[in-house]
Amino acid sequence: MDELFTVLGDIKTLFNQSLSELSVDCVVFGFHDNQLKILLLKTKGSSEWSLPGGWIYKTEDVEQAAYRILQERTGLDSIYLQQFHAFGANNRYNGKEIMSRVGIPPEYNFLPERAVSIGYYALVEYSLVEPKADDPFTEECRWWDLEEIPELLFDHNQIAHTALKTLRRQFDYQPIGFNLLPEKFTLIELQKLHETIRGRSMDRGNFQKKMLSYGFLERLEERKTGGAHKAPYLYRFDEEKYAAYLRLNDD
Amino acid sequence: MDELFTVLGDIKTLFNQSLSELSVDCVVFGFHDNQLKILLLKTKGSSEWSLPGGWIYKTEDVEQAAYRILQERTGLDSIYLQQFHAFGANNRYNGKEIMSRVGIPPEYNFLPERAVSIGYYALVEYSLVEPKADDPFTEECRWWDLEEIPELLFDHNQIAHTALKTLRRQFDYQPIGFNLLPEKFTLIELQKLHETIRGRSMDRGNFQKKMLSYGFLERLEERKTGGAHKAPYLYRFDEEKYAAYLRLNDD
Repeated sequence: MDELFTVLGDIKTLFNQSLSELSVDCVVFGFHDNQLKILLLKTKGSSEWSLPGGWIYKTEDVEQAAYRILQERTGLDSIYLQQFHAFGANNRYNGKEIMSRVGIPPEYNFLPERAVSIGYYALVEYSLVEPKADDPFTEECRWWDLEEIPELLFDHNQIAHTALKTLRRQFDYQPIGFNLLPEKFTLIELQKLHETIRGRSMDRGNFQKKMLSYGFLERLEERKTGGAHKAPYLYRFDEEKYAAYLRLNDD
Repeated sequence: MDELFTVLGDIKTLFNQSLSELSVDCVVFGFHDNQLKILLLKTKGSSEWSLPGGWIYKTEDVEQAAYRILQERTGLDSIYLQQFHAFGANNRYNGKEIMSRVGIPPEYNFLPERAVSIGYYALVEYSLVEPKADDPFTEECRWWDLEEIPELLFDHNQIAHTALKTLRRQFDYQPIGFNLLPEKFTLIELQKLHETIRGRSMDRGNFQKKMLSYGFLERLEERKTGGAHKAPYLYRFDEEKYAAYLRLNDD
């Protein structure tokens, strides 16, 4: 209980510097070996796992808050976060109820009865990042298989589900997956990435036709060797052409 | 000034029942005769046009607030609103500054120094709806040509621009435009709608192939007559097949 009160004091200090009706939650998907994982953490004093989240300082942009919170609570830095949805159900969060459930007397209970949370998501090659929290609140932080996510705090299961839907949809119109592949890759490797995200297999001919139609894949005069089949061509992702494609399609 | 103080009193009453750090803004696009318009309003006492927006009651979901605010401020009802982005720059809104700019003494100045706004957008056939505010704050409310939007309040130009980008992108993966066409339509009419939204012309063959590939367009044994060219087939939008398509692609 002593440790809990120390954590509570820290949370209160942070909360007093923050907006009181708004929070940020981050859904970080990890991709590795044709599998999708998700980064979850356990806050000290809590028995439930949750998404990395926190309050927004009164002086910072919401987007800055998202990057700071992710860094502080998981150690992940330089990760491209994308806002995807604000979760605003009236009953999604009740800080007072949670504090009273863990036995905090009302006079110590400073959390609000309601908060809207703005969700951000990211997709990273998870073998390249090592979660490691440096805030006083995180007890444990680790990757979970998507299929094994436990019951999470508040509406965090719904937030994670919405993030996954958004990620899948984004792969339809914006091939954001290139930063997850080695510099040179085969079209089969690219397809496996897309199939993992989409959770379903795709027709090889249609997939390759669509990818090549974008115009930012460059076929190299090199083939990948070592497989059982005829060595497939290697491709490179042309960042300049990709930027031009985005300008054309995004504005 | 008397009228201004009356309006202020009403705003304060509303504000006291609301969340203080969050607002909602609605971007309503109107489509008619191959043109896109946007619905703007002028708040009493303000010299600038703005998007229809307002505060969220403490007791309502953010989404409920969006529908209520749009109805109260513009008279538009039963319109499908879609959340698209939360605008969270630290300096995007300063209520205190605005009130002092119009000459309100500090003791009457109750607005916050910062608010995050959650944006919703909609697309309607604008000849079917008649804007008519029934709140005490709206002075005027009317459609504007997209190309003629004036300088708007706060970051509302940016909010409108982001809504337009989102609308265009959504037409890529989810053909939300069907509710804007008559029950029976030709593929040319459908293409004109898409071209208007996307702001560019499209290849007829590719467009028709893509639309038909979705599987929810039903070709009728009827042709549209009266044109200068060979009478084109009429199509109908099959809602059941569309719902099945959404289920398959959305979850």
